[in-house]
Amino acid sequence: MTNQDNPVQRLIEEFKKLPGIGPKSAQRLVFHLIRRPNEDCQKLAEAVSHLKANLVLCSTCNNITEVDPCRICSNSNRDPKVICVVEEPFNILSIEKTGVYNGHYHVLHGAISPIDGIGPDDLKLENLFDRLKEKIVEEVIVATNPTSQGESTALYLSKLIKPLDIKVSRIASGIPVGADLEYTDTVTLSRALSGRQEL
Amino acid sequence: MTNQDNPVQRLIEEFKKLPGIGPKSAQRLVFHLIRRPNEDCQKLAEAVSHLKANLVLCSTCNNITEVDPCRICSNSNRDPKVICVVEEPFNILSIEKTGVYNGHYHVLHGAISPIDGIGPDDLKLENLFDRLKEKIVEEVIVATNPTSQGESTALYLSKLIKPLDIKVSRIASGIPVGADLEYTDTVTLSRALSGRQEL
Repeated sequence: MTNQDNPVQRLIEEFKKLPGIGPKSAQRLVFHLIRRPNEDCQKLAEAVSHLKANLVLCSTCNNITEVDPCRICSNSNRDPKVICVVEEPFNILSIEKTGVYNGHYHVLHGAISPIDGIGPDDLKLENLFDRLKEKIVEEVIVATNPTSQGESTALYLSKLIKPLDIKVSRIASGIPVGADLEYTDTVTLSRALSGRQEL
Repeated sequence: MTNQDNPVQRLIEEFKKLPGIGPKSAQRLVFHLIRRPNEDCQKLAEAVSHLKANLVLCSTCNNITEVDPCRICSNSNRDPKVICVVEEPFNILSIEKTGVYNGHYHVLHGAISPIDGIGPDDLKLENLFDRLKEKIVEEVIVATNPTSQGESTALYLSKLIKPLDIKVSRIASGIPVGADLEYTDTVTLSRALSGRQEL
């Protein structure tokens, strides 16, 4: 039951390579699939197999898409005057789920991180500035993570964008909704204080 | 970004069907795969696709296998005088990992559960008794779960097997190694007491 020829063991090994899936979860997933009709396995296999077949980066915003420009960039109902800059394509999904944002996006595919040897040149910035030069955009919302990498990236961007006479804003950082002051770390709490808003 | 034609959304939906994978994990898995070389995706897809292609139940022990009889039943180094009865095929993997058991197995594919309408007739028992009648087996270890279903199944089996003059034993139930008496539930603690062994 341990060699790679065994289809059960082979799939367990493949699942174990995925993030957050350890040996026990992998085993549970495999035995779940064994109980399901073969049709379900084939649907999953096909979805995995076709995942990258037609995916490209949107030439406008660098989002992952199967049509270029992506559905967001080509959607005429969205406000072209605002661009929200995010680190990764999946950040777009999170922001879209809130339903409160109707502008465009720009994906950097990373954040400045000198420790990891990632400088501004390693980010996808060029087409952002091409768009800004078209003089349509009035505000850039920097929605990089509130980590040191994300903050450096935000600072770097604001320094470059402000001279173009475009408003640059940063998403708020503070205590998450539902959390407790008692269990909030001091950095977050001081952010929440300095970012206070009038009622 | 929400319709089924989108390969990203499609795979997220497929992953979400798996046990223990919610929308956030599914999204993380998909974006992990997007970053990996396409080769990795194809390996996973193939492993899923071929999972059930050649799997059958071992005609001797009902284990899931790609050769019949399974590698355990056909392994002449294993002790044919002991059979360990388990509820599910993956229970065999757990026991094999301990490395302390060298006998044979029998998989019931379930446990007696009147609430779910599962009676003894729904378990794969027939070929177990065929094996016991061969008069080779000296001990049957019942390793069903220490749940009410597993216990009923163990009782039922012992009633049927004892008259055949074969020793029937039950795996020990008690406090897990590394756990604390303080946080152990009363049922487990009383089991640990009644199952105490001389030092």
